[in-house]
Amino acid sequence: MRYAETDQMGVAYYANHYIWMEVARVDLCKDCGFNYRDMEREDGIFMAVAESACRYRAPARFDDEIVVKAWIEEANPRTVTIHYEMRLADGDRVLATGHTRHVFVNREMHRSRLPQKYFAMFGISAPQPD
Amino acid sequence: MRYAETDQMGVAYYANHYIWMEVARVDLCKDCGFNYRDMEREDGIFMAVAESACRYRAPARFDDEIVVKAWIEEANPRTVTIHYEMRLADGDRVLATGHTRHVFVNREMHRSRLPQKYFAMFGISAPQPD
Amino acid sequence: MRYAETDQMGVAYYANHYIWMEVARVDLCKDCGFNYRDMEREDGIFMAVAESACRYRAPARFDDEIVVKAWIEEANPRTVTIHYEMRLADGDRVLATGHTRHVFVNREMHRSRLPQKYFAMFGISAPQPD
Amino acid sequence: MRYAETDQMGVAYYANHYIWMEVARVDLCKDCGFNYRDMEREDGIFMAVAESACRYRAPARFDDEIVVKAWIEEANPRTVTIHYEMRLADGDRVLATGHTRHVFVNREMHRSRLPQKYFAMFGISAPQPD
Repeated sequence: MRYAETDQMGVAYYANHYIWMEVARVDLCKDCGFNYRDMEREDGIFMAVAESACRYRAPARFDDEIVVKAWIEEANPRTVTIHYEMRLADGDRVLATGHTRHVFVNREMHRSRLPQKYFAMFGISAPQPD
Repeated sequence: MRYAETDQMGVAYYANHYIWMEVARVDLCKDCGFNYRDMEREDGIFMAVAESACRYRAPARFDDEIVVKAWIEEANPRTVTIHYEMRLADGDRVLATGHTRHVFVNREMHRSRLPQKYFAMFGISAPQPD
Repeated sequence: MRYAETDQMGVAYYANHYIWMEVARVDLCKDCGFNYRDMEREDGIFMAVAESACRYRAPARFDDEIVVKAWIEEANPRTVTIHYEMRLADGDRVLATGHTRHVFVNREMHRSRLPQKYFAMFGISAPQPD
Repeated sequence: MRYAETDQMGVAYYANHYIWMEVARVDLCKDCGFNYRDMEREDGIFMAVAESACRYRAPARFDDEIVVKAWIEEANPRTVTIHYEMRLADGDRVLATGHTRHVFVNREMHRSRLPQKYFAMFGISAPQPD
């Protein structure tokens, strides 16, 4: 955890957990077989955040190493929900859990349909009607 | 909205809404009759965030003026829940809604009881047993 | 000053001063007669930061009201240098001074020439050869 | 580079470079033989930033891996100056250079003298008179 992420309580400011979720989300995309960067650049598809939530169980402190586990909880061609669990690398204590729900949008921020080539990566079993 | 708060989608990055909630929360404290700063300094009472959530309805863009309405949804000597509604100052469009739940803690981050002098300010009707 | 901007020393984290400079810079543009937002949107001209610096004289603390004075120190059709002075609204103490130097670029981040209609606003006296 | 660190120009917002410097600074402390966290906690010595500066040579983009080299340029028992060079991990392009100057302070933010046990770690050759 970065010094910039502390606040005057001496712990991680509560909005930073959402930034850590984002870092884990980008890694999750790589684990699923694609770069989120390329999805934006090449396909013009963005994962706009429709909803986010976090429960804080224990404070994170400066220089703590934090491991964020992220997994797709549910996905369809219109939306994807990702869950997160944040733990201390040292000792395995759960710091927080949370989720984000995303809608696929195009460059103009209009709702869009996930291109079929991504279906398997998101664990969407087969082409679905809208 | 600050340029720093935009991301490469050209809209406010989703964690910033939690910072705006915090700004509104501090103003809400003032409206309730106390400075959050003084509560920390003088009474050693902190409002640790136990839970936060946000639903995003429309994107906020650079230089948009955003008005955040905050109100206490529920309060007792152990915990307080605050709700928020974020609107564009110009046009009144709802951008997002959210809430935070806080537990009162002391300087050592241990759960604490809100001092009685704050009860009325939080709308807590009378001294309550734990 | 926002709670989010504090760090565990109990003062404003040193990178926030650059965000405050940006807020003052956008206001300065308005004082000069244009919206920076419109310059980006309509003319495709961006003020990319080439250099930034800050000297910190006194710490800023949570809930301090900070006034940032910004002025154009030097401008030509290729580059503009802006200086800043940050003071406490209450008591007038100087917290920090700094500057940013910007180059005008287009959407592709290539160096560009400021359109002539902005010259007077930046205090550039007359069309100049490159 | 994190998505949170981009702005609507599609590149890293200019204040983030100072956060990357801080991350490199903390690693530099470890390379020098101590944890900055422990210096704060155990000795009550903080490295307050007195001055910071950055020159931006090329934009950093989302998902770029950035390597920051940091080194002590000058140190004495009152102050230390650290220089930084930020490069793309892939291709070795220099993105930015910068420096920070720090004064040692105590918990009350008053100027303090670096305890002698840290002298060798900072490359300060011998106890010096004030």
